[in-house]
Amino acid sequence: MKHVHYTDVKREKVDDPAATGVNVRWLITREDGAEIFAMRRFDVKPGGHTPHHSHDFEHEVFILEGGGTLKVEDREEDLKKGDVVFLPADIEHQFVNDRDETLSFLCLIPYKD
Amino acid sequence: MKHVHYTDVKREKVDDPAATGVNVRWLITREDGAEIFAMRRFDVKPGGHTPHHSHDFEHEVFILEGGGTLKVEDREEDLKKGDVVFLPADIEHQFVNDRDETLSFLCLIPYKD
Repeated sequence: MKHVHYTDVKREKVDDPAATGVNVRWLITREDGAEIFAMRRFDVKPGGHTPHHSHDFEHEVFILEGGGTLKVEDREEDLKKGDVVFLPADIEHQFVNDRDETLSFLCLIPYKD
Repeated sequence: MKHVHYTDVKREKVDDPAATGVNVRWLITREDGAEIFAMRRFDVKPGGHTPHHSHDFEHEVFILEGGGTLKVEDREEDLKKGDVVFLPADIEHQFVNDRDETLSFLCLIPYKD
């Protein structure tokens, strides 16, 4: 088993030219024995955003702190603490922090072989 | 896709005689198109606890609010906001709220066919 505080997990800059001001912590991974899905925590600084992209796997998201805007296909939706988002595979999406405090969320993804 | 606040999801009492003071919200499920894993939020009242049990699937847990004690096999571990827990399959575990405020956590599980 694994039991840590999230701050004990290494924070890494998201190394994607389409991302700005985004850090990630891979909280639960295959290295911990999780073979089916992974838990990550993202922290997006004010003015930052994740890439605007789509991919062949889904996201399960829970907003922990802060707020922002979810751009999804041709819509914009307000994000706030306690929000739950399920993004199916192959849907264009982007998390934008247009607020004054850090936007933090969990984003879980399946492992696909 | 799905985008709601967690309070928009129906809160259900955990109907297990081995659980006390536990409510669950099934935030993301197969009904939303999530075929691989489900997201649930549990709220455990002060003095409450989840069943002391084990099962053939893993848990991925993130503590949202409050604190408590994780009983796992023959150990007891302190739980606090921001803690991350990976419980592999077939490990005895129980979440106990021995504090004065509600213990809230996300617990994600795989769908197994």
